[in-house]
Amino acid sequence: MNMFNLTKVEGGVCAPAGFKANGLNCGLNPVKEKNDLGVIFSEEECQTAAVYTQNKVKGAPIIVTKENLKKSNNISQAVIVNSKNANTCNADGEEKAQMMCKLIADELNIPKERVIVASTGVIGQILPIDPIKDHVAELAKGISEKGNIEAAHAIMTTDTVKKEYAVKFELDGKVCTIGGMAKGSGMIHPNMATTLNFVTTDVDIDASLLQEALNKIVKITYNCLSVDGDTSTNDMLCVMANGLAKNKTISQKGSDYDIFCDALYDVLMNLTKMLAKDGEGASKMIECTCNGAQTLDIAIKVAKSVVSSSLFKCAIFGEDANWGRILCAIGYTDAEFEIDKVDVSIKSKVGEILVCKNGSGVEFSEEKAKTILEEDEIYVIVDLKQGNEQAKAWGCDLTYDYVKINGDYRS
Amino acid sequence: MNMFNLTKVEGGVCAPAGFKANGLNCGLNPVKEKNDLGVIFSEEECQTAAVYTQNKVKGAPIIVTKENLKKSNNISQAVIVNSKNANTCNADGEEKAQMMCKLIADELNIPKERVIVASTGVIGQILPIDPIKDHVAELAKGISEKGNIEAAHAIMTTDTVKKEYAVKFELDGKVCTIGGMAKGSGMIHPNMATTLNFVTTDVDIDASLLQEALNKIVKITYNCLSVDGDTSTNDMLCVMANGLAKNKTISQKGSDYDIFCDALYDVLMNLTKMLAKDGEGASKMIECTCNGAQTLDIAIKVAKSVVSSSLFKCAIFGEDANWGRILCAIGYTDAEFEIDKVDVSIKSKVGEILVCKNGSGVEFSEEKAKTILEEDEIYVIVDLKQGNEQAKAWGCDLTYDYVKINGDYRS
Repeated sequence: MNMFNLTKVEGGVCAPAGFKANGLNCGLNPVKEKNDLGVIFSEEECQTAAVYTQNKVKGAPIIVTKENLKKSNNISQAVIVNSKNANTCNADGEEKAQMMCKLIADELNIPKERVIVASTGVIGQILPIDPIKDHVAELAKGISEKGNIEAAHAIMTTDTVKKEYAVKFELDGKVCTIGGMAKGSGMIHPNMATTLNFVTTDVDIDASLLQEALNKIVKITYNCLSVDGDTSTNDMLCVMANGLAKNKTISQKGSDYDIFCDALYDVLMNLTKMLAKDGEGASKMIECTCNGAQTLDIAIKVAKSVVSSSLFKCAIFGEDANWGRILCAIGYTDAEFEIDKVDVSIKSKVGEILVCKNGSGVEFSEEKAKTILEEDEIYVIVDLKQGNEQAKAWGCDLTYDYVKINGDYRS
Repeated sequence: MNMFNLTKVEGGVCAPAGFKANGLNCGLNPVKEKNDLGVIFSEEECQTAAVYTQNKVKGAPIIVTKENLKKSNNISQAVIVNSKNANTCNADGEEKAQMMCKLIADELNIPKERVIVASTGVIGQILPIDPIKDHVAELAKGISEKGNIEAAHAIMTTDTVKKEYAVKFELDGKVCTIGGMAKGSGMIHPNMATTLNFVTTDVDIDASLLQEALNKIVKITYNCLSVDGDTSTNDMLCVMANGLAKNKTISQKGSDYDIFCDALYDVLMNLTKMLAKDGEGASKMIECTCNGAQTLDIAIKVAKSVVSSSLFKCAIFGEDANWGRILCAIGYTDAEFEIDKVDVSIKSKVGEILVCKNGSGVEFSEEKAKTILEEDEIYVIVDLKQGNEQAKAWGCDLTYDYVKINGDYRS
């Protein structure tokens, strides 16, 4: 992708015109300082695209959001989201998710079918509705153009940092903006979907093209991310486009559509990297680039196989240039290619080193390798040397803290 | 499988008539007390069946063993195996593997094509042949009917215990025996193959039927095992049958073949459980049984998905009855079934508790669940309630020690 005229800006989901947000602690989380309920609101109705988890176990909010967008013909105007409880595998889950939509819709004076509802947290515990009911008026009243930080805080679970990203760019002379926020940081191995992510834009674009752009970009961003190989039950990524940038409506493919896709890629790719970097227990971000593949799908599979390998992730934690584990992970990729052409390098900001050529080891300085691996962003470059396609995948190291966090998440 | 008249016996690979073995430290491993070179020898020629890793990266020993068995028309008489170095991804790998065959064949006075060669250890480091050359005479001279323990010791890497299992049974009035030894304990997620495993038997059986039996049993034992999701480059399981039990040659399917399959299942299943229990860093063995599946393949996939989930493995380490993670893992299984019929129970020797019915949570005593999970063998029973097929899969918890062991395996 060529990035032309993209400028990173502050403001997250509130960066685009006409979007407001808020977040607060309603009591689902006993820690009063931790927000657990968030809202995003658009003054104008939004064309909406979304992708959802492919897990057969689907959180009740996924089912209700799908129904709402179907009823409203892909028009949305608000998101309500809670953390601490996934509202999944509960007999009354859909009823509760619908109540959440109704509660916020009434406060914002919009039809309840225009609400996107999402939940994240422990699976299989009844969602208490009273804390939400008791705080929804305060939540709605507090929405503002600076509310993005409170909202991003509300969706955090084991995340250690908030994840927001926004860019500005131009479409036929009009300033356009895309902003997003995302939640990590475990149960992350998206499959045609993502973890919880909300993206806002003031671009004017048809819902069908918006969905097409989203599908294309998700494939090469979120779906190339793995923290632990577990695909969540509540994954959802939605993009809301309210058209307030007043650009000429994007209703067919062409240069405007391409610019929009580039900007959307930039936002989603940067959020993906943030998720990788803040993966549960992670001390290092790993990016694997696969070059020279015959097809995009092969490149994606190879890159993803490397960043998903538990053994390689442990080696990176230990700063050990155990490249045999990289080649092993490339080798068990479920795709057709020749292994004996493959070159592998490892890289960080202090240098790059070739560790494997044509599928066999080469001599290299262990000392230099160690220096490279001491950095906190590690890049693996795989060249299959059998085509022209390229893809990247993102992950993180596997650490003591991952085990600690997940040894007793529920308490 | 019905287990009739199977008796567990001592002796591992030396339990069947006519098999001898030995192991010693030849210096590949600087720890003098740790064997790193092993041999198994049969007085008589053996019908041989084998399965190998499906990883595209194949260790040189795999390639040489395949060639040998092809040349010898599936007749073998000896195994030579080293640990500490996988002899994989080295330009001179095949040459070294062939040298290993020649060295031991000359000592044992057999054709070199009758040698099965295997290596396990670090990938991508040149295998020093001199330590093997210098010790092969001593290795061969020391073979005995009690050498199984030294041989089993020689294939250990990060294993904490030796893994041997043997059973006796009868075929048309003749006492028959099958024995096996296996190596763990990381990079274990077998795919139509296994980690290093050597099985011996004195049963008289055609090589083609032996291969058919092996394929059938591997599918429901080793291939249902996952320690860390990484499929090794050097996986190999071979069965050597020397016919010294003097039973009527098994050359077609029927009751003798069925009895043999039951015995082979018992040996491989018990070795599989040992591998799970001694998975790298493991503190608990996990067995998942999937009942009520429409097909065997669905049952296998569901059971394997549960034991492979990093999040569930951490919860078991933390003795936390976080059943939502079990349902999540069932849900992302790549197979067709209805999720809202599924029941899940957890069990150990102190009790059993239902945690999920028809895909939704049920109330249960957290205290009782905690007591169940304090044991070191944990059983998960999944009932899909949509068919009659059943399968089991085995794994282990994910612990601090797994990360520690693999943070710096090479040193």
